[in-house]
Amino acid sequence: MIHPAWLPSEAFRAIGSRRVLVQGTGPLADTVRHEIAEACARFGGTVVQDRKTAELILSIAGPGGEGFRLGRRGDATVISADGPSGLLNGLFEVVRRGERAFGPALTDERHVPALARRMLDHWDNVDVHPVMGQVERGYSGGSLFWHDGRPRDLGRVRDYARLLAASGVNAVAINNVNVHTTETRLLTDRLTEVAGLASAFRVYGIRVHLSVNFAAPVILGDLPTADPADEAVRAWWKSTTARVHEAVPDLGGYLVKADSEGQPGPFTYGRSHADGANMLAEALEPYGGVVHWRAFVYNHRQDWRDRSTDRARAAHDHFAPLDGTFRDNVILQVKHGPMDFQTREPISPVLLGMPSTRLAVELQVTGEYTGQQRHVCYLPPMWSEVLRAVAGNVSGLAAVSNAGDDPFWTGHPLAQANLYAVGRLAWNPTRDPIAILDEWIDLTFPGASAELRDVLHDLMDESWQTYEQYTAPLGAGFMVRPGHHYGPDVDGYEYTPWGTYHFADRDGVGVDRTVATGTGFTAQYPPLWADRYESLATCPDELLLFFHHVPYGHVLHSGVTVIQHIYDTHFAGAHRVTAMRERWQEAAGLVDPALHARVTERLDEQQRSADEWRDQINTYFYRKSGVPDAHGRPIH
Amino acid sequence: MIHPAWLPSEAFRAIGSRRVLVQGTGPLADTVRHEIAEACARFGGTVVQDRKTAELILSIAGPGGEGFRLGRRGDATVISADGPSGLLNGLFEVVRRGERAFGPALTDERHVPALARRMLDHWDNVDVHPVMGQVERGYSGGSLFWHDGRPRDLGRVRDYARLLAASGVNAVAINNVNVHTTETRLLTDRLTEVAGLASAFRVYGIRVHLSVNFAAPVILGDLPTADPADEAVRAWWKSTTARVHEAVPDLGGYLVKADSEGQPGPFTYGRSHADGANMLAEALEPYGGVVHWRAFVYNHRQDWRDRSTDRARAAHDHFAPLDGTFRDNVILQVKHGPMDFQTREPISPVLLGMPSTRLAVELQVTGEYTGQQRHVCYLPPMWSEVLRAVAGNVSGLAAVSNAGDDPFWTGHPLAQANLYAVGRLAWNPTRDPIAILDEWIDLTFPGASAELRDVLHDLMDESWQTYEQYTAPLGAGFMVRPGHHYGPDVDGYEYTPWGTYHFADRDGVGVDRTVATGTGFTAQYPPLWADRYESLATCPDELLLFFHHVPYGHVLHSGVTVIQHIYDTHFAGAHRVTAMRERWQEAAGLVDPALHARVTERLDEQQRSADEWRDQINTYFYRKSGVPDAHGRPIH
Repeated sequence: MIHPAWLPSEAFRAIGSRRVLVQGTGPLADTVRHEIAEACARFGGTVVQDRKTAELILSIAGPGGEGFRLGRRGDATVISADGPSGLLNGLFEVVRRGERAFGPALTDERHVPALARRMLDHWDNVDVHPVMGQVERGYSGGSLFWHDGRPRDLGRVRDYARLLAASGVNAVAINNVNVHTTETRLLTDRLTEVAGLASAFRVYGIRVHLSVNFAAPVILGDLPTADPADEAVRAWWKSTTARVHEAVPDLGGYLVKADSEGQPGPFTYGRSHADGANMLAEALEPYGGVVHWRAFVYNHRQDWRDRSTDRARAAHDHFAPLDGTFRDNVILQVKHGPMDFQTREPISPVLLGMPSTRLAVELQVTGEYTGQQRHVCYLPPMWSEVLRAVAGNVSGLAAVSNAGDDPFWTGHPLAQANLYAVGRLAWNPTRDPIAILDEWIDLTFPGASAELRDVLHDLMDESWQTYEQYTAPLGAGFMVRPGHHYGPDVDGYEYTPWGTYHFADRDGVGVDRTVATGTGFTAQYPPLWADRYESLATCPDELLLFFHHVPYGHVLHSGVTVIQHIYDTHFAGAHRVTAMRERWQEAAGLVDPALHARVTERLDEQQRSADEWRDQINTYFYRKSGVPDAHGRPIH
Repeated sequence: MIHPAWLPSEAFRAIGSRRVLVQGTGPLADTVRHEIAEACARFGGTVVQDRKTAELILSIAGPGGEGFRLGRRGDATVISADGPSGLLNGLFEVVRRGERAFGPALTDERHVPALARRMLDHWDNVDVHPVMGQVERGYSGGSLFWHDGRPRDLGRVRDYARLLAASGVNAVAINNVNVHTTETRLLTDRLTEVAGLASAFRVYGIRVHLSVNFAAPVILGDLPTADPADEAVRAWWKSTTARVHEAVPDLGGYLVKADSEGQPGPFTYGRSHADGANMLAEALEPYGGVVHWRAFVYNHRQDWRDRSTDRARAAHDHFAPLDGTFRDNVILQVKHGPMDFQTREPISPVLLGMPSTRLAVELQVTGEYTGQQRHVCYLPPMWSEVLRAVAGNVSGLAAVSNAGDDPFWTGHPLAQANLYAVGRLAWNPTRDPIAILDEWIDLTFPGASAELRDVLHDLMDESWQTYEQYTAPLGAGFMVRPGHHYGPDVDGYEYTPWGTYHFADRDGVGVDRTVATGTGFTAQYPPLWADRYESLATCPDELLLFFHHVPYGHVLHSGVTVIQHIYDTHFAGAHRVTAMRERWQEAAGLVDPALHARVTERLDEQQRSADEWRDQINTYFYRKSGVPDAHGRPIH
């Protein structure tokens, strides 16, 4: 039994019990008609052919576009869509509103997405990778697309596409950005697999993108070089891209991780990333395709003894000088923070410093560093902070999916909310993340009692902050076990080549990234931001150790010392998990027993893990600082 | 080209240029005849049939046994062997002596092995293990016995058997003590593979032993339980063992890792290890076989917060109460130290405290914790200390082999010396390890110049102490990267379930294992030993942190503080590696260029790694202690 996530059939009751008219032609209008027909068959409504009797009218009123108007005309609720995609988006808006879509109080509203491209990236491998498995950083079972080297049945892919469409997503990248040999062939002799997936996503208005290997001309054995200045290489990409579009005419484009963590790239040939990205953009241009070029480029062979190199600086150092040199159909895809999806990071200065480049912000829905879907961690409050800061600078959002072939889609059933919300925030970054959570609850638990709603809010609203409390303190980041990144290991990355340090000693902790005495990272920000982070007086507490190395006795704006803050938050965070576990028991009988059991099991693990985090972090810093807890709580 | 190790054809020149008589019948006499014939064919000697003209006479003079007499009778050198094995051992003694075996100065000597069973354990898997690979903790390429699920050609196995015989080894365990499903079947439907290997080892007087899975009756699907008190289980082992002996009549016996690191064992059924071992011993008894039962039993799911549990205590706690309850053909196989093959450990108290049990001491030739055959680390000085202490208490030695299908057998060519020496020490534990090194040099580099000999001594004599200098200090142990165990990670195991801690804080470091204030481990030793370790006044410096938690300012017997000792030894150790590298360049032209290149490449890595160890350990303890180096050397 696959869980219906936020589209249980009950969610269509309000529509399915009415007389509905759908006007328009084409595959997306057909999809809408099909959805309506299914709903009416279930709930007793009727598909009608004239406006007079219709209670819901969905029509394509414009030449194209994803937006729509919603309003009342007489006794009917009307969706007037800008184009076929708008029709589908309008349908799901009505689904979300349920009965509220049909009251006379409904006023005219116009809905258009804030971000043009709202993409989910899938780190799925075709072949099972010996270390990373079927899905890199996947915590929800296997891939929805491939199993052990072979494509899977498309039935569930269509269900997945439908869920994504209902959340506002309009693009997917289907394969891992680390493109291994087999996956490189998706571009050539495995194109039928791409075409199959594209057909499943297409009926829900979602365009498929392909992660490609920059060295594909070499790896596939066709050429001796992948140099973007080489005419044969450019011709290879053009002809290869032409063949790709014969199989998938509406391919969205390519996604590239180049010169990053061992992946090949233009640096091999002494070329810039603009050279590399522009070559692919040129090949895609005739088809309206784009290149998503990841800005995740840094030295992962750093010497920990070299304190002048700062990984946080890397993306800006590499890319800011290239501003204005990318072709129009290149989208620079930038992780939201300067490091790598930590629980707390400042905004990446790249997102604030490349005005002449198309940018997409990259978020991580899969919980690599945020509890791996074993912990409750509702991330939209974090994403909301990011998106409010950068929405004006970016034209797209790319989010690494947390879905897999797990019956609950996301391992932890409550992690479905992250998948749902990321699309909703991409559509409208100003939405209140807690209001989105309510929307998700309404859809996922139709007719949820006030009691259940309260339990879910108690578990989820502040779960990100709770997770932050018991893990790495004050923006320090990366205190996880190397490799799998689950659970605490304070020094796990401290003496490694990955550039992720905290520099804790017996006197203090934190990374000095100031201009005055540190790595100068703060200077990568616009002046107001830079001043705020540079000064201890204005740097926000939650980012203190990201920007400054301070003594354990340093007093935070909150009034407590750094060391006491560490103890306090770690005791508090683990304690809040205890409260969450107890609270969840009150939901027994209010939700599907299988779902309840799954969440219970995950909360047990979250408790064990939170206690382990609390004790390791507290013991580590007590051993270093020698400062006892002011409240005498047990530190081992 | 496979390197000939310590049996290059040149090693047989003295024999092969003489008139040789071999008297005796049977397969081992045939082997000796074959060796002689080959040597004579190469060097112009003759196999003769009468004593009058013989210059070398090898004869079987007794009914059986591994010993032999060596002496002169007239103009002939004579080996009078106690039995067929003695004949082979005598041959290799003559090989080792070369021309010196034929001088008139040779006096009568009797040679008998000190330890009856001198065994090499192979941690080879049939199937490639997803984490551990073909050979668990193997650093010399693949297995000599299996490749990717299939048995290999026996040619090289015979060469290996010959090398082992020439070093004094008379037993091997062919498969990993972690017996996975495929390997469990070696006991039943894969018996022909065991028989094949046994045939290759047999002609060199080496008996094959099989690692078995205690749960084999269940895993192979024959029975619902493996309870040693169950009559059906006992009958299963008897009939299975009977079938094994039909295929391999001279099987040495079984080797078992039970109730250890996830392996099944008698604890599952509420039985003791004596119950488990005796059941197998009973099945083997009719065939003269023995059970090697490993004492490596501890809680590997320990809570690091629980300071009362001490892994060092585990083997003695488990096994000492069972003294006298094992059958005569059970051999308890005990790691030399109480932990797990660290560079420096005290002797295991089990080896000193089970007078009514047959014991074998287990050593690790493969360099899991001693540089993994990337570092020069000649281990016999450590083994010699161990064996001098326990030789009177043990009847056997089991050593985990460091050989694989690498062209140099052992990855690092100089690691061949460890493989050679472990057999020689098992034969005679009182031998000077540096004299054994000379013996190995003579055989491996025939006609080695004084210059080459000096270089090799400079590199190898103190290489174990050098390795100790730049790794974990003063007996602390386990400051390695979890999982692969290569390179430094001071806190890598500090907050884990493995029971391997150092408890370093800002004030001091070490594990208090005293009776007075610690875990009481010292009380497991006989009184003189216990007193020595219990008292700070008498505890040897090199084991200080194994037995005591002391402040960084504690003054060692050597006169320096603990913290200064850490700095001094780490700078000195890494510096000695630099000297070794330079010294090795002087051997260019004195040895085979391929061997020279391989050692050079390994020394480069050893230097990098030693510098990394030096810097991580020094930085870690500087950050904790805040005490600067008295000599102002760079600490990062």
